[in-house]
Amino acid sequence: MTIPNIIPSKKLTGTVDGLFMASGDEFVTQPAGELVLAYEGIPGDLHSGLTRKSGSREPWYPRGTEMRNERQITLLSRDELAEAAAQMGIDTIEPEWIGGNITLSGIPMLSMLPAATLLFFEGGATLKVDFQNGPCRISGASIARHVGRPDDAGLALSFVPAAKRRRGLLAWVEKPGSIAMGAKVEARLPEQWIYP
Amino acid sequence: MTIPNIIPSKKLTGTVDGLFMASGDEFVTQPAGELVLAYEGIPGDLHSGLTRKSGSREPWYPRGTEMRNERQITLLSRDELAEAAAQMGIDTIEPEWIGGNITLSGIPMLSMLPAATLLFFEGGATLKVDFQNGPCRISGASIARHVGRPDDAGLALSFVPAAKRRRGLLAWVEKPGSIAMGAKVEARLPEQWIYP
Repeated sequence: MTIPNIIPSKKLTGTVDGLFMASGDEFVTQPAGELVLAYEGIPGDLHSGLTRKSGSREPWYPRGTEMRNERQITLLSRDELAEAAAQMGIDTIEPEWIGGNITLSGIPMLSMLPAATLLFFEGGATLKVDFQNGPCRISGASIARHVGRPDDAGLALSFVPAAKRRRGLLAWVEKPGSIAMGAKVEARLPEQWIYP
Repeated sequence: MTIPNIIPSKKLTGTVDGLFMASGDEFVTQPAGELVLAYEGIPGDLHSGLTRKSGSREPWYPRGTEMRNERQITLLSRDELAEAAAQMGIDTIEPEWIGGNITLSGIPMLSMLPAATLLFFEGGATLKVDFQNGPCRISGASIARHVGRPDDAGLALSFVPAAKRRRGLLAWVEKPGSIAMGAKVEARLPEQWIYP
């Protein structure tokens, strides 16, 4: 086997255009003036923690197995959400409805940023991208409720195909710090290749 | 922009053929009968910890900045080390000399496994691949010492090109557990694509 073609590391820049957290025990988030990140994520947020319990996304573990929490922060793009909304035939998908913590503008196809991308936020916090998020029916049902069609199972289900590759990124805190609305972010993409 | 071509997730299998840890304050490792992994890595190992201090590999931070420790475990392939040794004109590179913790056989081009690959070890431990490791001059100097040529700066330096793309993987503990010699490992590669 020969070494695959290597795409060099590169940088992209974006801007924070939304900050949210889930203060209660529901995954829907509420706008936040700023986010103060610690190693466990956003202290007080539903998804904070150095560890978490496994769920349906980890079918290789018995449900409820303790594991590292690599899904601390949900990053979304309003452009991608608008595309998904259009495909679902609704006016908008608000980031809060599907548990977004940070929305970023200026980075095309945010959801396609590679694993291990570093996100350096103005102010000193750093997130590291774990992987692309996958859309689920629970988020679809939340959208249906928020547009006033809680019993429209077809609408809820349509989120899964509409948001495929558009459901943002999961990330964990590499370096704690505060993130303010309007903060600039530099994305440092790692070298990329395809394992043959 | 259009969604790039997606390579599906896939599985590979390998076998643990070496276990090592660095019990002191030197990065050279010593053989271990088994490794007991915790969330901080290998307790008592030089590179254990939930956090670490940044160094020359993170030029974007002032040296010594506290950050998440994603470099807990060094995985190596004896086949890749043999290729690097041949290119350096020496008989062998032993994993201990360059701080290896686990050697795996049976997975071609181990160093090229993508970020976010999960390594499920027989016995229950799981590692998650952070990224490919890069060869450095310190490891080269250790090799030169171990082959009895401590003053051969050319040999030490030759490790960097010889071990490029062959220097193994850095990983962190997703799920604690014990790893025994001869344990089977299943590598679950994530979906792969190139961000355009």
